[in-house]
Amino acid sequence: MNTAGIAILGSTGSIGCNTLRVIESLTSARMRVVGLAAGTNVALLADQIATHLPEMVSVENEELAHELRAKLFERDVDLPRIVTGEAGLVEVATHSEADCVVSATVGAVGFLPTLRALEAGKRVALANKETLVMAGEMMTRAAQQSGAELLPIDSEHNALHQCLRGERREEVRRIILTASGGPFRTKDIAEMQRASVSEAMRHPTWNMGAKITIDSATLMNKGLEVIEAHWLFGFGPDEIDIVVHPESVVHSMIEMVDGSVIAQLGITDMRHAIQYALTYPERHTCQLPPLDLTAISNLHFEAPDLDRFPCIRLAYRALTEGGTLPAAMNAANEEAVSAFIEQRISLTEIPQVVETVMNNHVIQPASSIETILDADYHARLSANEVIGAICV
Amino acid sequence: MNTAGIAILGSTGSIGCNTLRVIESLTSARMRVVGLAAGTNVALLADQIATHLPEMVSVENEELAHELRAKLFERDVDLPRIVTGEAGLVEVATHSEADCVVSATVGAVGFLPTLRALEAGKRVALANKETLVMAGEMMTRAAQQSGAELLPIDSEHNALHQCLRGERREEVRRIILTASGGPFRTKDIAEMQRASVSEAMRHPTWNMGAKITIDSATLMNKGLEVIEAHWLFGFGPDEIDIVVHPESVVHSMIEMVDGSVIAQLGITDMRHAIQYALTYPERHTCQLPPLDLTAISNLHFEAPDLDRFPCIRLAYRALTEGGTLPAAMNAANEEAVSAFIEQRISLTEIPQVVETVMNNHVIQPASSIETILDADYHARLSANEVIGAICV
Repeated sequence: MNTAGIAILGSTGSIGCNTLRVIESLTSARMRVVGLAAGTNVALLADQIATHLPEMVSVENEELAHELRAKLFERDVDLPRIVTGEAGLVEVATHSEADCVVSATVGAVGFLPTLRALEAGKRVALANKETLVMAGEMMTRAAQQSGAELLPIDSEHNALHQCLRGERREEVRRIILTASGGPFRTKDIAEMQRASVSEAMRHPTWNMGAKITIDSATLMNKGLEVIEAHWLFGFGPDEIDIVVHPESVVHSMIEMVDGSVIAQLGITDMRHAIQYALTYPERHTCQLPPLDLTAISNLHFEAPDLDRFPCIRLAYRALTEGGTLPAAMNAANEEAVSAFIEQRISLTEIPQVVETVMNNHVIQPASSIETILDADYHARLSANEVIGAICV
Repeated sequence: MNTAGIAILGSTGSIGCNTLRVIESLTSARMRVVGLAAGTNVALLADQIATHLPEMVSVENEELAHELRAKLFERDVDLPRIVTGEAGLVEVATHSEADCVVSATVGAVGFLPTLRALEAGKRVALANKETLVMAGEMMTRAAQQSGAELLPIDSEHNALHQCLRGERREEVRRIILTASGGPFRTKDIAEMQRASVSEAMRHPTWNMGAKITIDSATLMNKGLEVIEAHWLFGFGPDEIDIVVHPESVVHSMIEMVDGSVIAQLGITDMRHAIQYALTYPERHTCQLPPLDLTAISNLHFEAPDLDRFPCIRLAYRALTEGGTLPAAMNAANEEAVSAFIEQRISLTEIPQVVETVMNNHVIQPASSIETILDADYHARLSANEVIGAICV
């Protein structure tokens, strides 16, 4: 068995750290970390370098690179090649010794490096769903042309990937994404209006970063996942459904034309999906505790409430209208989530900001990087105008 | 697409009737009924003949054959070839135009015809689990030698078959059979001791024949399924688990070495599993209502209680000790269930009869039809002695 070279974009984030833990625990598969890209968390990155000795690392800017060099020098760790900025991210993503690139940066910053990795024919283990929302058509086309594999780390899509093994696409009637429902599943709209950031950060089942946790509170996360599922598996908006399932044990399901439903279940630990994506098509023994259904005892399912969670409707609309609209929606959402975290707008104003930006957006075909980045840029400007007007 | 010839053993039973309904509803797959084997329900068989015009039918004896001829003559239906007894069953099971044999007789009577169908290289859609319990080794060897496919109709094993598609055997850690728990799941042992036949016949989720319904009340049905699963999929007793799941929505599950669990879910209608077995490896559109998890809303899971349901322990023991012991256990159980239905013994005496017979059985290798039928015969004698002693 050859040693697989792994590059991680976003190595100091939640998925990045879990990826390193998976690699450390995987004694039956030989993997070597060849590249790490972080943003600003130089202290943690230095630890990761000391443990995994990657050939190349990337940080956000020269100042942080300097800081990193100092830290590694202090600790007597051999210096890796250090690159910076977006160009640095792309260098790590296309490192010649990387067989698999884990794309786990948050938000739109992962777009270009992920695209370049796919163009270079590398397996991409994708946690960054924004990338597919912005530019699903370009991403999947690049993967097809180079023969690159695109494997989802998102637990729902990872589940769908597992369910679809051994099935024929034309025999699948629909896919069913499960949603925990977030911390406001049982709250009324008034409570949601006055929700604090810390309340919105209390995700019932998954322990994740800030952006995705707020997206889970508005259910925009599920909306983004609908678009992600479309690009990963080729299902139309009318073939993708959402079921709220508070325990997050059933990670997602597919319904076959004969009515049979295949589901993937597991504990809520991202390391499962990460390991699956790294070792596919093999499955390797995992040290995590197995799912104990008798201990959980009770699984609930309910329909999502589109009135309290309008982000779902917005995402279906973006997917249906297509072109640059999903990129614009995604950018507006990122800005609105930031504004909520900064306590400039309320939780229920997030979908309002997004919808206003979508209404004003002039849809273009999502055919080039420039068009998509342009849609992203203008949607952010537009979102900040709307946010500014709310804050007055 | 060629027309597939179907022969049904046990055509007037629950599975047999449902098989005919599936064939009638399957407009996208071409199937023709070439043989029907019934026991004594000549009136229903005559209806089935009038609708499906099989080339050959079988009934239990000459007297019933005579009755059937008269009925068909009355209705002006062309007479099929009519055969009788066990030889007749075997003739239907090995009919030259049958591509697929649905083995749906109840109990040990299905053993020989099913074996002959497998030897003849026919696909066998197996509802008769007793067949595999008695002679799993012979059955699976016969299938291997002739290249015959053995496809389970039992909803749990059908589910496992679906879950295992696309997975590698060595990457499956264990299989998990779900059990409804039967009508006595929440009852104490005293209530079970005085349970009437009609109480035991009240299955919470599935509508089935009498023998299997009583087996579901004692959970012997699940024990038989453990043995069935062993022979169908090659898992050892320590790799097969049981979880009680009262809603019977999750039909069964597999757990992979990486901790991922794949489950098959569906409504509780046998036609799903039957259609799957008839059309495999294709899946065809089914007219039945889809599973609506939001309507069901709540799924429960609990560990089985081996004290109140000792039949499970007996079945694991039979599988572990092997040889003719499963055949003896199965025969003793059939006799004990009959005695319970005839109100000669109580429900909780069923496992006592079975255990006594097992304790007295001298295990032989299950290497020939004669040895197996001999074990079956003597276990029945022994069971009736035990039952007789109880009835005094």
